[in-house]
Amino acid sequence: MTHFSNSRKVRIEWGDCDPAGIIFYPRYFEIFDASTAALFERALGMTKFMQLKRFDFAGYPLVRTRAKFIKPTRFGDDVTVDTTVKFGRTSFEIEHRLSRGAELCVECSEKRVWVVRDGAGGIKSHPVPQEVLAKFG
Amino acid sequence: MTHFSNSRKVRIEWGDCDPAGIIFYPRYFEIFDASTAALFERALGMTKFMQLKRFDFAGYPLVRTRAKFIKPTRFGDDVTVDTTVKFGRTSFEIEHRLSRGAELCVECSEKRVWVVRDGAGGIKSHPVPQEVLAKFG
Amino acid sequence: MTHFSNSRKVRIEWGDCDPAGIIFYPRYFEIFDASTAALFERALGMTKFMQLKRFDFAGYPLVRTRAKFIKPTRFGDDVTVDTTVKFGRTSFEIEHRLSRGAELCVECSEKRVWVVRDGAGGIKSHPVPQEVLAKFG
Amino acid sequence: MTHFSNSRKVRIEWGDCDPAGIIFYPRYFEIFDASTAALFERALGMTKFMQLKRFDFAGYPLVRTRAKFIKPTRFGDDVTVDTTVKFGRTSFEIEHRLSRGAELCVECSEKRVWVVRDGAGGIKSHPVPQEVLAKFG
Repeated sequence: MTHFSNSRKVRIEWGDCDPAGIIFYPRYFEIFDASTAALFERALGMTKFMQLKRFDFAGYPLVRTRAKFIKPTRFGDDVTVDTTVKFGRTSFEIEHRLSRGAELCVECSEKRVWVVRDGAGGIKSHPVPQEVLAKFG
Repeated sequence: MTHFSNSRKVRIEWGDCDPAGIIFYPRYFEIFDASTAALFERALGMTKFMQLKRFDFAGYPLVRTRAKFIKPTRFGDDVTVDTTVKFGRTSFEIEHRLSRGAELCVECSEKRVWVVRDGAGGIKSHPVPQEVLAKFG
Repeated sequence: MTHFSNSRKVRIEWGDCDPAGIIFYPRYFEIFDASTAALFERALGMTKFMQLKRFDFAGYPLVRTRAKFIKPTRFGDDVTVDTTVKFGRTSFEIEHRLSRGAELCVECSEKRVWVVRDGAGGIKSHPVPQEVLAKFG
Repeated sequence: MTHFSNSRKVRIEWGDCDPAGIIFYPRYFEIFDASTAALFERALGMTKFMQLKRFDFAGYPLVRTRAKFIKPTRFGDDVTVDTTVKFGRTSFEIEHRLSRGAELCVECSEKRVWVVRDGAGGIKSHPVPQEVLAKFG
């Protein structure tokens, strides 16, 4: 297993929030998905669009996620998402920590699987390419 | 602790899906949030809008969620979401099972907390009103 | 040019609304996109997923939209979307009228174009197939 | 009428895109709403959250929008949104131009209205405060 991390800033927007004035929690998962993509982009040195061409795969959908909502965030908050990854053979585990300043607001863990198209309009799991693993080295 | 359940049909839309052609998983949490609202609407006999006026609270945000993605769904799929609840004092646990026909696609559990406005622009937890519990009987 | 219409019911959800307590307007366009899909599904007798296989095209993206927001809607509102279409050669015009009871809340017009994959990872416009036009009769 | 402008960078994400591999157009309106908020934040020197407290209003919902989709964008694209505003008495007009490099991809115009709470759970239009206009001066 290898480790790798990335950090990015995200602004919580008005449209991310609900009538209680705090973030509508599904928006966190949009933020986390983009944070996973940012981690891969940093490690591989290319966007996900280019990755799909280069490695001929169909994405890395989730098989499981868990999130703990510790402090609510609201529009105007600038938060930091720290993301780490550990690789298995066909899957990998991601951890996200979303903070506002020193205050931890959300913790999330994901298990994702590397998939390729199965030739029948569907997708199937596939070992993460060695070249990808090497970049995360 | 009391039990109560609800079931509703949801169409997976084109705009819920990503370039892999399957649902973008944060959309499931939008579906589940609306399923929790539907459960409360059925039990209390009024929409969430009316509930907020009747019970003078600010919503029931999540403190934790866990989801297991078993089978991908895609645009055009009509899925069923079966939702159950168990109440604690200030919090409650929700289980969602999303199926396409006989096929279980996603399992999700949520812990939510009943909140009221704290008078300082924020929210704080509060015991679930007896009248609400009674309706879930 | 041919005419065809469809009507569907939509529930405005808590998560569709913003801190002002009313719908966050981009959600209307999600509703309208699904309403256009529902119109095509009704006319062609198959889901968009099946349409893409049957007619070998890549969708019908927008080239223009205009919307007028007359009355705000909010969570718990059950609205009706009435949708009509007029076809040109490679494009078509859609009108949506979203109402709450007798009250018109939003009017929207769209111009969309029928597209196929261009073989280079992109899309290009293409005449709407005669078989499709015939179904809209 | 006064003029004021702002420019910001936005990354188009995987989750913003649909099965055709291009952005699902309602996401543009989320981007534009955040661009309008960014313009106000820059002019007024505070976030929308602070603005709502400072000026005691309920937001600036749309009464109309028009968008022209010239070139599709896709995940991994870094786009620039240039936003300008012209004020009327209770309303204002916003123009957004979304570009990828030198290529104009989307043009959008909005008419928005300044609203305050009406004391009955709803909202009503209200003259834009002089202090706000002065900051845009």
